[in-house]
Amino acid sequence: MADQELKSGMKRIAHAARMAAQSIADLPTEEKHRLLKSIQKQLKERQQEITGENAKDLESGKQKGLSKAVLDRIRLDGKRIQRICEGIEGIIALPDPLGEVMEERTLRSGIRLKKVRVPLGVILLIFEARPNVVIDAFALCFKSGNVSILKGGSDAAHSNVILARIITDALKDAHITPDALQLVASRDHEAVDHLLDLEEDIDLVIPRGGERLIRNVVKKARMPVIMHYKGLCHTYIDKDADIGQAVAIALNAKIQRPGVCNAMETLLVHQDIADKVLPLLAAGLKEAGVRIKGDDQVCALVKDAEPASEEDWSTEYLDLILSIRIVRDLDEAIAHINRYGSKHSEAIISENKDAQERFARMVDASSVFVNCSTRFNDGFEYGLGAEIGISTQKIHARGPMGLRELTTYKYILSGEGQVRT
Amino acid sequence: MADQELKSGMKRIAHAARMAAQSIADLPTEEKHRLLKSIQKQLKERQQEITGENAKDLESGKQKGLSKAVLDRIRLDGKRIQRICEGIEGIIALPDPLGEVMEERTLRSGIRLKKVRVPLGVILLIFEARPNVVIDAFALCFKSGNVSILKGGSDAAHSNVILARIITDALKDAHITPDALQLVASRDHEAVDHLLDLEEDIDLVIPRGGERLIRNVVKKARMPVIMHYKGLCHTYIDKDADIGQAVAIALNAKIQRPGVCNAMETLLVHQDIADKVLPLLAAGLKEAGVRIKGDDQVCALVKDAEPASEEDWSTEYLDLILSIRIVRDLDEAIAHINRYGSKHSEAIISENKDAQERFARMVDASSVFVNCSTRFNDGFEYGLGAEIGISTQKIHARGPMGLRELTTYKYILSGEGQVRT
Repeated sequence: MADQELKSGMKRIAHAARMAAQSIADLPTEEKHRLLKSIQKQLKERQQEITGENAKDLESGKQKGLSKAVLDRIRLDGKRIQRICEGIEGIIALPDPLGEVMEERTLRSGIRLKKVRVPLGVILLIFEARPNVVIDAFALCFKSGNVSILKGGSDAAHSNVILARIITDALKDAHITPDALQLVASRDHEAVDHLLDLEEDIDLVIPRGGERLIRNVVKKARMPVIMHYKGLCHTYIDKDADIGQAVAIALNAKIQRPGVCNAMETLLVHQDIADKVLPLLAAGLKEAGVRIKGDDQVCALVKDAEPASEEDWSTEYLDLILSIRIVRDLDEAIAHINRYGSKHSEAIISENKDAQERFARMVDASSVFVNCSTRFNDGFEYGLGAEIGISTQKIHARGPMGLRELTTYKYILSGEGQVRT
Repeated sequence: MADQELKSGMKRIAHAARMAAQSIADLPTEEKHRLLKSIQKQLKERQQEITGENAKDLESGKQKGLSKAVLDRIRLDGKRIQRICEGIEGIIALPDPLGEVMEERTLRSGIRLKKVRVPLGVILLIFEARPNVVIDAFALCFKSGNVSILKGGSDAAHSNVILARIITDALKDAHITPDALQLVASRDHEAVDHLLDLEEDIDLVIPRGGERLIRNVVKKARMPVIMHYKGLCHTYIDKDADIGQAVAIALNAKIQRPGVCNAMETLLVHQDIADKVLPLLAAGLKEAGVRIKGDDQVCALVKDAEPASEEDWSTEYLDLILSIRIVRDLDEAIAHINRYGSKHSEAIISENKDAQERFARMVDASSVFVNCSTRFNDGFEYGLGAEIGISTQKIHARGPMGLRELTTYKYILSGEGQVRT
């Protein structure tokens, strides 16, 4: 497609989204729930059609030589479709955030001020392989009164199209504008660049995926971006840790699901407890097949540990690899985390109240964990319901983003003729 | 200065700010208040020194041929220094936003979750002529636990330097790190570009000034930006308006201070009431020396009105000029505002509840005013105390930004060994 044509295509998509935003913002909760239930129903009834389209993506993925892990992310089967439906159920069960009066007071002028929760408007979500995101993201945006523009990875193109068609069909059946969902079908990388220019019609971009993709979005977007670059999460085992607890939490943070952003990448251990905790931990790590990289002291204590390089401290392995460093004290642990961490999830294991409090106060991260696993950084675990992403930024939303984080507010001021003097 | 040297200078500034952020975040409220009071005292005692430096800016401004309006903005005299001190007083009187527990609950895992208000960290403020911003912005950022990097316009360079020195002296006297304030002294335009690259060390940029300056910042910044491009505010006089009230509010919104962002730029009048309201209003506008631009119907009703061009509907005059348009009904007024408005401040004058509610719901703006003047969009009027700016964005803060809008939150999760299964 010629660049000019692509550009005007993206303009049309964003403008159609903006035009639909007002009516979506005004839908009653019940009507939104009916729509979500009808999508659920369609997902079940059209399961064969979905898996048929998904098979095309899997087939061309195999031909392209995609890794098993990526192919697994693309795959949709009966069980996964069932899980998508349960996700919709969860979103229906959450309270509608819109219309909430967040503050109300009478000003010195006698004017009555109300701060009311309203939708953001139009949200652009950029994501990579998993096609279930089409349904999850639409459901979250729609329930919070927003129009979604979705740009998925080309590896799941057929799957994304069929899932988007199911949503669009349900919207039409319910006499709601089908413009409430915009799927960007173009496989052209430039498509995203054009969208990122359209600040008039797009209120927020949420990029999900690899760090390179996200850095490109941050560089080019004219509208606000909420995201996390990576999850380089630490667990610090203090000298006053309960050793059994420390070992169990560290193993969980590394092993339970190593490929996700809230898994531990670096373990910090206080020098006074290292010789007690490391042998126990190393046994568990080896059993799970974890490769250990460590500083000199760690290499002396743990057989088979490889020496860690400076680069290791800033590497998000997303794999069964762990870097371990022994620190002099709590403050060295805090300094290491604030230097190398990604402001995502940071944990301390300690029975000492002062150490817990100092760590929680001084570590700069969206979530600080005391005596529990970083793996708990998750919208569902926090009671927010599903999440559209996790933010490591400090603006607007920090940590898991649920329905409420997809809203903003509006001041409504009512007077009886007040003028300013 | 060579570009490479400038670049490393800006890196040093941002890094020094980041290093200072932790200790500023942890200062007790009382210590912050003592510092602010000592700045107040110094401002009074060193008034001659301040006006002396200010005179240099005024002198070179005259030689550069700056307009009277700009020279007036730069000027500092006893009365204005007094007003700056009153501003500090106001900030001291506000509650400290830090440490507030915004939410607290026990999760299904048994983990105790607390959502605690914390500072943003390092804030870069870019502003133009007014030197008082040095004190106002530092005081707001400091009280909310943030380090400020200030880049003022070169026309007030001497004034900015002396005011920053007063702050730095007060910090040193109080044994607080003087790095809590970074004044960017370079007059090089590139300095800002370099700062906008430093997302690791700067958490937020607030640009204030002309639309061109702000667009440049939005284009180049890697970190979040909160701002408004302009204030193109409307007042809509509905067919069910109280005519006396409508005239008084419209005159106030246009005339009381035409050069500011919450002044009215376009008036919309319902066709059924135009012949009653326009002659009265036109008389008042003419008396105040306001030039009227209008559509055909307006030109027919108002002697001396000039025909408005399409461009007028998107022009922020910031002057005694008003564009007037007659609309068929409420919905045409809403459509006009959502097309040409800047999402800043929009008013309806009507006694009809349905019209008020429809307008408040459908107009997309940070603040909607019912039967009062748009001039009330102001942090002080809203009871937020001083403001560091007004945001027309939907992310993080919308409308006037006070102390609370300069903070974020952190989740602290306390468990007893919980791991995820």
